[in-house]
Amino acid sequence: VQHLVVDEMPRQMKPGLENLNDGVIAIIMTIILLEIPMPKAGYGGYFYFIRNIAVFLVSFFIVAEFWYENRQFLMLVQKATKQIVVLNFLFLATLSMIPILTKWLMQTPNRLAAVTYGVVQLLVQLFNYWLFYSGQKQTFRDQQSYRLFFDRIIVLRLISTLGVNLLLIILAILSPNFSIVAYIASPIISLLYPESL
Amino acid sequence: VQHLVVDEMPRQMKPGLENLNDGVIAIIMTIILLEIPMPKAGYGGYFYFIRNIAVFLVSFFIVAEFWYENRQFLMLVQKATKQIVVLNFLFLATLSMIPILTKWLMQTPNRLAAVTYGVVQLLVQLFNYWLFYSGQKQTFRDQQSYRLFFDRIIVLRLISTLGVNLLLIILAILSPNFSIVAYIASPIISLLYPESL
Amino acid sequence: VQHLVVDEMPRQMKPGLENLNDGVIAIIMTIILLEIPMPKAGYGGYFYFIRNIAVFLVSFFIVAEFWYENRQFLMLVQKATKQIVVLNFLFLATLSMIPILTKWLMQTPNRLAAVTYGVVQLLVQLFNYWLFYSGQKQTFRDQQSYRLFFDRIIVLRLISTLGVNLLLIILAILSPNFSIVAYIASPIISLLYPESL
Amino acid sequence: VQHLVVDEMPRQMKPGLENLNDGVIAIIMTIILLEIPMPKAGYGGYFYFIRNIAVFLVSFFIVAEFWYENRQFLMLVQKATKQIVVLNFLFLATLSMIPILTKWLMQTPNRLAAVTYGVVQLLVQLFNYWLFYSGQKQTFRDQQSYRLFFDRIIVLRLISTLGVNLLLIILAILSPNFSIVAYIASPIISLLYPESL
Repeated sequence: VQHLVVDEMPRQMKPGLENLNDGVIAIIMTIILLEIPMPKAGYGGYFYFIRNIAVFLVSFFIVAEFWYENRQFLMLVQKATKQIVVLNFLFLATLSMIPILTKWLMQTPNRLAAVTYGVVQLLVQLFNYWLFYSGQKQTFRDQQSYRLFFDRIIVLRLISTLGVNLLLIILAILSPNFSIVAYIASPIISLLYPESL
Repeated sequence: VQHLVVDEMPRQMKPGLENLNDGVIAIIMTIILLEIPMPKAGYGGYFYFIRNIAVFLVSFFIVAEFWYENRQFLMLVQKATKQIVVLNFLFLATLSMIPILTKWLMQTPNRLAAVTYGVVQLLVQLFNYWLFYSGQKQTFRDQQSYRLFFDRIIVLRLISTLGVNLLLIILAILSPNFSIVAYIASPIISLLYPESL
Repeated sequence: VQHLVVDEMPRQMKPGLENLNDGVIAIIMTIILLEIPMPKAGYGGYFYFIRNIAVFLVSFFIVAEFWYENRQFLMLVQKATKQIVVLNFLFLATLSMIPILTKWLMQTPNRLAAVTYGVVQLLVQLFNYWLFYSGQKQTFRDQQSYRLFFDRIIVLRLISTLGVNLLLIILAILSPNFSIVAYIASPIISLLYPESL
Repeated sequence: VQHLVVDEMPRQMKPGLENLNDGVIAIIMTIILLEIPMPKAGYGGYFYFIRNIAVFLVSFFIVAEFWYENRQFLMLVQKATKQIVVLNFLFLATLSMIPILTKWLMQTPNRLAAVTYGVVQLLVQLFNYWLFYSGQKQTFRDQQSYRLFFDRIIVLRLISTLGVNLLLIILAILSPNFSIVAYIASPIISLLYPESL
């Protein structure tokens, strides 16, 4: 029974976790779509519609990029232990806020919106890397060289993520409008970038 | 044919049941997200936004904890017989009400809200344990010792669940405000707790 | 290539069809949930809330019963040919209307609502049986006895479904209020019934 | 590690991509359903309801047809490389706009709506074919004859798609009302057509 609970259950839990993630992220990706009203008559109504579509597209691709990273990181997870499940929920919970914060940032680009966005995006990335680190520990438990390789990747990524995000948060305090461009551009650039690992 | 209907179909039905569960629970987890309006200008609007986010997060993690338990319990199910399918739908139907009841409880914490929440949460847990019990009977049909082990777990859990929940419902009648803290805290504590089985 | 298109693709299409079905049906099951407002102060508001929950639960279990039947029927499908895919979409499209029609029927139980509900439910069942029939033809192509067995089941079911539904539609014209009870009760009885095949 | 990142990860990513697609497309298919209000009293209200249902059904089957094509095309994909993931997200993002554009086109059939619809539908198809082409290159890397066969299919389809769509866009500029019938009819005809490949 000990074996069942400690070993077998987390192993079987993993596909379930991925499946739930896909469902939750599919909703997060499309949630802004629900709020786009039909264009009103006239070209003014049309441009307002286009702007709404632009907000949707930005939020869509930001969440898409996080989905892609998360799926890659989960590949290294063999056993969805309770710790990994909780980390994953923290990732999903913070990710859920990205669409509404993106919308806020794009519609009323002020300091408060930019700082909030920056903090939440940093949390999303930290939970995601933590997940990566936990998975990597499981997969390469006995492969010293792999672990070192991935540890170096994680440390490098973590430093750059923390650095970039803290800089962006400071930028958001000093000059919100400028930081917005960076916030919106960075995940999209990273999505279009050849390979992320 | 008898064999097909009694044995093969429930066995094939099981992954479908898990998949539907993931879909329905993904929606239940994120349903409150849809109702969070963008923060209005000023710090008052921001604090109202934060409060909405807090309600969402609480509901999110409560449903997440139930998803995790349910997935664990379904692992013991080999054949999704009609009885198990119906139990599972009763679990999902009662779980569906958790987000709106959480919101109600957090926004207007009165006796009616607290008692309703308590009764629904008790039902969710009872259906979930019943599912666990049915699955356990299937898996360990011929393994007397395992069955005894799990039967003891279920009886203990059931007694503690019933006890805690009835106490909370009484508390909700006597002092609603106090019971709310307990309602919100308990599933989150249980989620953060190392292993639940 | 001929072989690939005629044989391999429909075979690989099948799990995709089931997965899409689970997603679409998860949404259909929970769609009414989105429209339930939080209870307003006072017992009047509470009873209105309970009534909304009741409408949700009825619609939830009706759709759940159709999901269960559909999943059973799809088990007999080996290759999701274009014909089966189209039939399945017709099933999903008509099923999508059940929640709003259930709500309409329960809130303003008049002749128009009852007849519309009756016709749509009949269509859902016809598309579902047609799917069953197509799947059964695939699975038992060379097993004469099985085919006869299932053909008899389908013919019997079809006759009883058509008979019951046409009677209910006539009843809906003559006495809408009475037919409503029958409409709501029948799928729930069928869900709670031991085995449906 | 090189091997892991270049070969193993994209291979494992593929089922995840399909699963996310199913989730996102399930939402896109049913999104209009959320906006159908219950019929108001009287036959006028009923006909308005029927019209809303008709808009939903048209959008549902158009998206369904794209889902079917996309699932077929993804069958040829062995490894979900970053390029394929990005193409797939571009497909999903443009597809997301079909429901609201269909509604717009059916409710206020003017030139602007018809041209917008035409351009978006063309993009959806181009991203989908591009996906097909990338998948085909992977699967038949070493099978010259297959590649030639599929290349010919893709070129023919691309020419006909581009031709038909550009004609429809010109038609939309000249006579919007007429083009609408063509827009709505074409994916539905293609869905009901025996085999699409």
